[in-house]
Amino acid sequence: MQPDWSSKFADRTQRMKGSAIRELLKLTERPEVISFGGGMPAPEIFPVKEVGEACERILKNYSEKALQYGTTEGYNPLRQMLADDATKNGLSCQIDNVLITSGSQQALDLLGKVFINPGDNILVESPTYLGALQAWNAYECNYITVKSDKFGMLPDSLEEGLKKKPKFVYVLPNFQNPTGISFSLERRKKVVELADKYGIPIVEDDPYGKLRYEGEDIPTLTQLDSEMRGQKNALYDGNVIYLSTFSKILAPGIRLAWVIAPPLAASRITQAKQGVDLNTSTFNQLMAYEVGKDGFLDTHVKVIRKVYHERRDVMLDALEEHCPKGVSWTHPEGGLFLWVTLPEGNDSAELMKEALKENVAYVPGGSFHPLGGGDNTMRLNFSFSNPQTINEGIARLAKVFRTHLH
Amino acid sequence: MQPDWSSKFADRTQRMKGSAIRELLKLTERPEVISFGGGMPAPEIFPVKEVGEACERILKNYSEKALQYGTTEGYNPLRQMLADDATKNGLSCQIDNVLITSGSQQALDLLGKVFINPGDNILVESPTYLGALQAWNAYECNYITVKSDKFGMLPDSLEEGLKKKPKFVYVLPNFQNPTGISFSLERRKKVVELADKYGIPIVEDDPYGKLRYEGEDIPTLTQLDSEMRGQKNALYDGNVIYLSTFSKILAPGIRLAWVIAPPLAASRITQAKQGVDLNTSTFNQLMAYEVGKDGFLDTHVKVIRKVYHERRDVMLDALEEHCPKGVSWTHPEGGLFLWVTLPEGNDSAELMKEALKENVAYVPGGSFHPLGGGDNTMRLNFSFSNPQTINEGIARLAKVFRTHLH
Repeated sequence: MQPDWSSKFADRTQRMKGSAIRELLKLTERPEVISFGGGMPAPEIFPVKEVGEACERILKNYSEKALQYGTTEGYNPLRQMLADDATKNGLSCQIDNVLITSGSQQALDLLGKVFINPGDNILVESPTYLGALQAWNAYECNYITVKSDKFGMLPDSLEEGLKKKPKFVYVLPNFQNPTGISFSLERRKKVVELADKYGIPIVEDDPYGKLRYEGEDIPTLTQLDSEMRGQKNALYDGNVIYLSTFSKILAPGIRLAWVIAPPLAASRITQAKQGVDLNTSTFNQLMAYEVGKDGFLDTHVKVIRKVYHERRDVMLDALEEHCPKGVSWTHPEGGLFLWVTLPEGNDSAELMKEALKENVAYVPGGSFHPLGGGDNTMRLNFSFSNPQTINEGIARLAKVFRTHLH
Repeated sequence: MQPDWSSKFADRTQRMKGSAIRELLKLTERPEVISFGGGMPAPEIFPVKEVGEACERILKNYSEKALQYGTTEGYNPLRQMLADDATKNGLSCQIDNVLITSGSQQALDLLGKVFINPGDNILVESPTYLGALQAWNAYECNYITVKSDKFGMLPDSLEEGLKKKPKFVYVLPNFQNPTGISFSLERRKKVVELADKYGIPIVEDDPYGKLRYEGEDIPTLTQLDSEMRGQKNALYDGNVIYLSTFSKILAPGIRLAWVIAPPLAASRITQAKQGVDLNTSTFNQLMAYEVGKDGFLDTHVKVIRKVYHERRDVMLDALEEHCPKGVSWTHPEGGLFLWVTLPEGNDSAELMKEALKENVAYVPGGSFHPLGGGDNTMRLNFSFSNPQTINEGIARLAKVFRTHLH
């Protein structure tokens, strides 16, 4: 008989839509389109030489380990390096807190698998990171959104949400994707205190923490939580699961990220990861360790910061120069994105058709809002395109604004 | 307050046990232990030179692509290479059928995500691959097991199972993990016909298909299904999802595998993969393509076959020489494993304590049986240890048998 695949899919697949961004990016692949839609690092500053030397070294000295299966938790020297780096930067933790994942997206999926029962509430910002929504929709959760301003979540709104007993709070306190907004120190403390008060765990997603172009570094929620508990120089055993990644400080093509988690959570995440991919590429783990072990990434991050700082400024200046009145945007102190708000009543998804006619693209803001809204917003990426292209692209976009906004 | 992680985990985590094998392997890490427990390829024949040259070439010529994000479906030249290779080997398929995954374990997890509702039945062999059980336990399915003999699943038992409307049938027709048994051509045809008759999809897991040491290659279920439908030189649109991997023909450390799926299933699997890891390491995909594009893997597989063939023979001879009466084992025509059966009433899990005292290890067979049973069986791996070590290890194991079996 003719196979009937459509009748075989699990119910959860109805909640799993393809990413609007990924579908959109296909439309923007024409070379004449200037796309601010993706979230890609600048490929011209990938540390190609250092990656090449690392590959050579590991194949010369550790080939049998690098090409073999590894442990689910990850390559121990890499885990230790990450624990040391976190400790140096203010979060006391140990190797047992650190798990290697195949990109942060895998960490988000694993958190869904370990924590989310169908129908559970997850407390998020709105807008929030689309990849997290995609990962967790498959676990059939619901979302509670919290109101925010330019300093982060509003404490009253957060407390109201916590009273509804969500499974966890998900936040990106540094240069949030999509808005570029960072939480103030005061707000961070408030999130940590309130989550503790209500006994609700926090998932802190921090892919861009090292990419600050102005202002002072602010402690992570994980660090503040650890300090509140007086856990200096110990295994971290607090209320936060911390995620970060090599995608933005080394290269996304190696799909390498890490989780810092309290021991009980770490052990469940490891169990889940066994069933999901056995282990993350040993080859890539050894490579990242070889690239990073002598501090090269600290040097390299300075290069990235310089390049993205300039690109952010170029984009901010171009917006200032070209945009009509009524259009506003965020001023991110770091990261990869800024957030544009059009006058109320305009629909950025509709406007994309006009933008594509002018060969410029962005991501409409609606899809970052789990409960709807934000139709008059859009995300712009400033890390991928060079300054000249950014200038030209913003000029095109502003022309679309001038012609079609109402 | 003190965080209470134990109260936060999802219900499904109760079904997700850590792999007995992985826990066991920790016990066998003492260097004096000869372990037949793992499923690892022989590291001394990893194609280190070719991997190194491939890394050099891709970093010289394609670094911006290799280190960047990629598409969820995978790197197109690699997908095309795999479609061409499948077609050359008798399964007509096209690039749109092929998806790249982060190891076959990820493919198993994605199948769980796309197909399994809690409570669904999955029809499996018993014993069957433990990693599949681990992946799917997290989706809270139940198992129906089918009786088998040395030619594969027994058609009557299979038909009885199919009448219970399982979500899919999972089979490893070539050199099964754990038993080493292969399905005869007749049995393969029967599986394809019966699955078609009852409208139940098949998942064909084929990690070892190219590792045959004696006898003739037998068509895959996917090929037989395609031929039954007369789909020559077309997009494959039949009843089987086929899985295979680079882990056994190149190296497991790059975590690279592929799925050949009918278009509707392929599209859902891709959607699921977006939420799970965005894409598999672009770097590793380009590397595998560079290593494989000119046919090197066909040459390399001959080396692997030669080495494993010898090791299999050494293990079979050693078992013959040392084992007491009443112990029997399979004679696999390929793959990495053979399967030992002890006299009824002996417990191979209990016996492991004695084996470890003699510094030899295996995997007790019980854990491969989703509904229990098989306590008097064990899995032995012959790919990882060299011939001398195999001889010594089997001598130790036989001593344990002679001393402790009843």
